[in-house]
Amino acid sequence: MAKFVIPRKTVYRLSLYFRIIERLHQNRIETVSSAALAKAAGVKPTQLRKDLTYFGQFGTRGLGYKVGSLVTQLASVLRTARFQPVILVGVGNLGSALIHYEGFAKEGFEIVGAFDIRPERAKGANLRMPILPMDRLGEFISERNIKLAILTVPGTNAQAVTNALVDAGIQAILNFSPSILQVPNNVVVNNVNLAIELENLSYFIT
Amino acid sequence: MAKFVIPRKTVYRLSLYFRIIERLHQNRIETVSSAALAKAAGVKPTQLRKDLTYFGQFGTRGLGYKVGSLVTQLASVLRTARFQPVILVGVGNLGSALIHYEGFAKEGFEIVGAFDIRPERAKGANLRMPILPMDRLGEFISERNIKLAILTVPGTNAQAVTNALVDAGIQAILNFSPSILQVPNNVVVNNVNLAIELENLSYFIT
Repeated sequence: MAKFVIPRKTVYRLSLYFRIIERLHQNRIETVSSAALAKAAGVKPTQLRKDLTYFGQFGTRGLGYKVGSLVTQLASVLRTARFQPVILVGVGNLGSALIHYEGFAKEGFEIVGAFDIRPERAKGANLRMPILPMDRLGEFISERNIKLAILTVPGTNAQAVTNALVDAGIQAILNFSPSILQVPNNVVVNNVNLAIELENLSYFIT
Repeated sequence: MAKFVIPRKTVYRLSLYFRIIERLHQNRIETVSSAALAKAAGVKPTQLRKDLTYFGQFGTRGLGYKVGSLVTQLASVLRTARFQPVILVGVGNLGSALIHYEGFAKEGFEIVGAFDIRPERAKGANLRMPILPMDRLGEFISERNIKLAILTVPGTNAQAVTNALVDAGIQAILNFSPSILQVPNNVVVNNVNLAIELENLSYFIT
């Protein structure tokens, strides 16, 4: 199974399935129906079954999926993706909260460096690490072979910082700025636009 | 044009288009090609054209879309979605950062109340508002007719808090907890799982 054949959105859902399956496994549950697993993951059963065929996992009618074997297979795909060192650029309110955010460390992501145009501003934020000035960015990334960056700068600076990150060797960016970033084809960007999430939700309020 | 005919993911993209179109309008640009608008929004031109047909906007071959008329039409759909009061539940690192997050206020979303099981913990966080105890949740929501909630509690408490929110009348939840929430059909949930975003990105690092 070549890595590149699994589409991006499928990989995202595999992460969801893995978290649920891991919990079932810890609770010594041996099989799970596609309906139950799909419900827990918030997807349609047809979607789940299609996603799991990437592993040759077809389930057994009336029995469902074997939890133990699913855990092993999903882990072998996704574990390789964990334990990546990460840098963060932009230590405002959101940036400093993400540095403290326990959800990252729990999943094996360590923020090893943080950068800001005003490195002195973060003093009050009681951070565990020094904030480095932007002119240290390129050197830090290439010396430590960092591939993954979290971008929490304002929209006006986002593209310029992105260009610097890409030049230094960053391959994947988690973008919290409201800008749509232009990057080369070999760089992946996931956008988290919190204001749009709220706007989207409130559209459906009656 | 009935509100309910526009699919969720389309509404999400309309928010993106609107931000870009607004900026073009401010810069007195009168027309935009679907290719340019699609690139700025990070979607395929076919997707963009399909999305805009919900407004009877088909563009003119060789001329593109009229910026002024697109602004008006998108605004009429999306503006109704803004200026919703929001509550936040779970004032840990992420929760207190979101209370301070300027991106929400800028887009017209005001966090009018924050709740925590230990309301005294947020003292050091220098927040602009009092943190209320959980037993005030139901009363606050119904008295102020709040429909929208941000959930930043740990995964273990997420479903119980969600049940309380739904019982009190919340119709839409922006969920930052790692749990997949079970809600009635009339309640909408958008999930932001930051650890999964990083895992997803790092899968594509070579």
